[in-house]
Amino acid sequence: MDEEVKLGIIGFGTVGSGVVKILTQNADIIKRRLGFSLVLKSIVDIDISRDRGVSTAGIHLSTDVGEILDNPEIRIVVELVGGYEPARTFILRAMAAGKHVVTANKALLATHGEEILETARRSGVDINFEGSVGGGIPIIRALKEGLAANRMVKVFGIMNGTANYILTEMTENGESFQNVLEKAQRNGYAEVDPSLDVEGIDTAHKLSILLAMSYEMPIIPEDIFTEGITGISSQDIRYAGDFGYKIKLLGISSAHDNVVEARVHPTMIPEDAVLSKVDGVFNAFYVVGDVVGPTMYYGQGAGMMPTGSAVVGDIMELARNVRAGAERRVHPLGFETRCGEKVVQKIADLVTKHYFRFSAVDRPGVLSRISGILGDNQISIASVIQMGRELRGGAVPIVMMTHEAREADVQQALREVDQLEIVQDRTMHIRVEDETLRGGLS
Amino acid sequence: MDEEVKLGIIGFGTVGSGVVKILTQNADIIKRRLGFSLVLKSIVDIDISRDRGVSTAGIHLSTDVGEILDNPEIRIVVELVGGYEPARTFILRAMAAGKHVVTANKALLATHGEEILETARRSGVDINFEGSVGGGIPIIRALKEGLAANRMVKVFGIMNGTANYILTEMTENGESFQNVLEKAQRNGYAEVDPSLDVEGIDTAHKLSILLAMSYEMPIIPEDIFTEGITGISSQDIRYAGDFGYKIKLLGISSAHDNVVEARVHPTMIPEDAVLSKVDGVFNAFYVVGDVVGPTMYYGQGAGMMPTGSAVVGDIMELARNVRAGAERRVHPLGFETRCGEKVVQKIADLVTKHYFRFSAVDRPGVLSRISGILGDNQISIASVIQMGRELRGGAVPIVMMTHEAREADVQQALREVDQLEIVQDRTMHIRVEDETLRGGLS
Repeated sequence: MDEEVKLGIIGFGTVGSGVVKILTQNADIIKRRLGFSLVLKSIVDIDISRDRGVSTAGIHLSTDVGEILDNPEIRIVVELVGGYEPARTFILRAMAAGKHVVTANKALLATHGEEILETARRSGVDINFEGSVGGGIPIIRALKEGLAANRMVKVFGIMNGTANYILTEMTENGESFQNVLEKAQRNGYAEVDPSLDVEGIDTAHKLSILLAMSYEMPIIPEDIFTEGITGISSQDIRYAGDFGYKIKLLGISSAHDNVVEARVHPTMIPEDAVLSKVDGVFNAFYVVGDVVGPTMYYGQGAGMMPTGSAVVGDIMELARNVRAGAERRVHPLGFETRCGEKVVQKIADLVTKHYFRFSAVDRPGVLSRISGILGDNQISIASVIQMGRELRGGAVPIVMMTHEAREADVQQALREVDQLEIVQDRTMHIRVEDETLRGGLS
Repeated sequence: MDEEVKLGIIGFGTVGSGVVKILTQNADIIKRRLGFSLVLKSIVDIDISRDRGVSTAGIHLSTDVGEILDNPEIRIVVELVGGYEPARTFILRAMAAGKHVVTANKALLATHGEEILETARRSGVDINFEGSVGGGIPIIRALKEGLAANRMVKVFGIMNGTANYILTEMTENGESFQNVLEKAQRNGYAEVDPSLDVEGIDTAHKLSILLAMSYEMPIIPEDIFTEGITGISSQDIRYAGDFGYKIKLLGISSAHDNVVEARVHPTMIPEDAVLSKVDGVFNAFYVVGDVVGPTMYYGQGAGMMPTGSAVVGDIMELARNVRAGAERRVHPLGFETRCGEKVVQKIADLVTKHYFRFSAVDRPGVLSRISGILGDNQISIASVIQMGRELRGGAVPIVMMTHEAREADVQQALREVDQLEIVQDRTMHIRVEDETLRGGLS
């Protein structure tokens, strides 16, 4: 029973180096768990000369992906190239060759997931992607197996470490978005092109994978309303604090019969809620099932070792399946068949509380004009806490919290307000969630 | 591919009823996940006439356990009898008959786990027990598979819903232990004999299972230092609050080379730590791995539906293995072989901060006598916040927090203090944990 299972890694970047390090450093415990050895045969990258600070003794390094894809000994291919191409082609070729695949590539899964899953099915191979959502947090496994007895009711959380790091730094140090972003880029916490992270796209990618696993939907990130954090100012963070809130970039979903609510946007949440305490590069996912009730999962959402932990866990699962002859034991998304159509609720129909920061000239009657427009659009004001602090150009911020209001009404009202000659800048608008996101944690 | 997998349930109590309800209510989604049906053939209980409020249409009800254990059609036996006997015998008989077993019986696993696991190995069958620890929280799966790439560093948390409910009520309403316990018994949150829960024994049982899965140890609850919450007074909870702490019953473990620290006791933790916000019947587990870093898992730790969720998830996993011919795909504890001996650290060697409440007579020189004894035993006082409130019989409480001190020294000092004629009652002693239990959550 000591036959080994062989694997190859394509992509020797940060996560690839972490995976190699874990396979070496924890080889003993991995073998005791499995009862057999994992053998990393080959690593392929366009650059195999750079020193990654990890030992590659006994591992074949090559720039030719064929050394992995065409090697019949290799049963598991680990794709850590990232991006769309050539990652997609590598995965499809590996599957066609009957190899199982592990990836942490959420952008690829969100965009080409249906094609990849269909290819896996036809080829009779598995694809695991725990590292694609929540870094080292075993959230994919929880949805696929641990909570399998449940009809999912809600799934939401902090899903992007870069955006969370930026908001945390802005909150703690009162710095501007731009300053913190530049610091994050210098520290390697943010990409040179940070748009996937700060525009909410990466969160939407991850949420689209969770939606498919929770509500039996196809993977459709384009149906998820997505708004990033680039417009958030340290002023808004300060006002949020005055109201007792923090601002977090959340992915939020819930299901009611065949209608799924799915959205990504900066959200004001009570500062004593547990999600408000999830800071820096940490992620947290709430999953509410119909029988289990609220559950929560927390850990580092990205990084060489946490994501490496997830990738190696995935490799171990697939190696077990290879050894047991139990390929396709579980569908990659957790459902062998999906129930009928699900419809994503239009954002126009969303009902939440809202925060507005209007930039108005300091003149009598301004508040009455604005509140008149809100009233005409069925938006009722809960409180106005700030006004009269003069800014450049004579504008003053008027800051409001509303009661629950329909998004379509809010958009209409803001269009009208922003056309007033007494309003100098586009109104800042942040959605507010109170009780619904506590998930049982006081 | 639509062959069904048949199962039987022994024990039609609270969790058994929950399992039956879930199998009925979520039969559609369970089938879509699996691609085949689970069929509950038989339920056995000594009482099959009582109405449990769940539909048993099409299910054979019997008082004869042989109807399940001797039925070759039944591949999975769900043991929900609880307690040691006859549960142990039923499980061993089911295994001998080649049936896979699902149980939520932590007391049995903690006490007879080694025998049961050895019988499972010899019989080539699986045993799943997600519901035995953390109710519906998939913590067993996280340790066994999700975090399998890790060498575990720390595992700790709130593992008993009854004790947590009692401490929560005592904290929120200032009520006495006895009053809250009686209320909990009336509400069904506590057993008629609550000793397993309030004496910390149930937490030690659960922790012993987690230790085996985390550190490759045998299941040895008797090696875990265990102290319950029966001595905690509302006074101590109030003083804890004055110091900025809450009191929680924690299971705590960590590993350093071959030495494992493992203990269960009421613990003062900072009131802004996330564990302090885990209230009522909720549980939370921190798992710190060498590569994943800190992770946390939270949900309802007990109850008909949460535990039912875990049990049905276990049934689904085993049914998948049966269908794939992949029995024993993963060892029940996650390790095919264990590394050499682990030693549980003696409690005498534990170093923590401490809270003391002395009951001394109100007389000059008392504080000097007590602090002299502490000093002689290398215990350094961090602060004294309360003294001089007279109680019955002229005794006053002197409340202290210490710096880090060795448990053996503390025990010696308390023995000496409690022998002083100026000390009227046994000194209350609660261990204090600060930074170490935050696990990355600020």
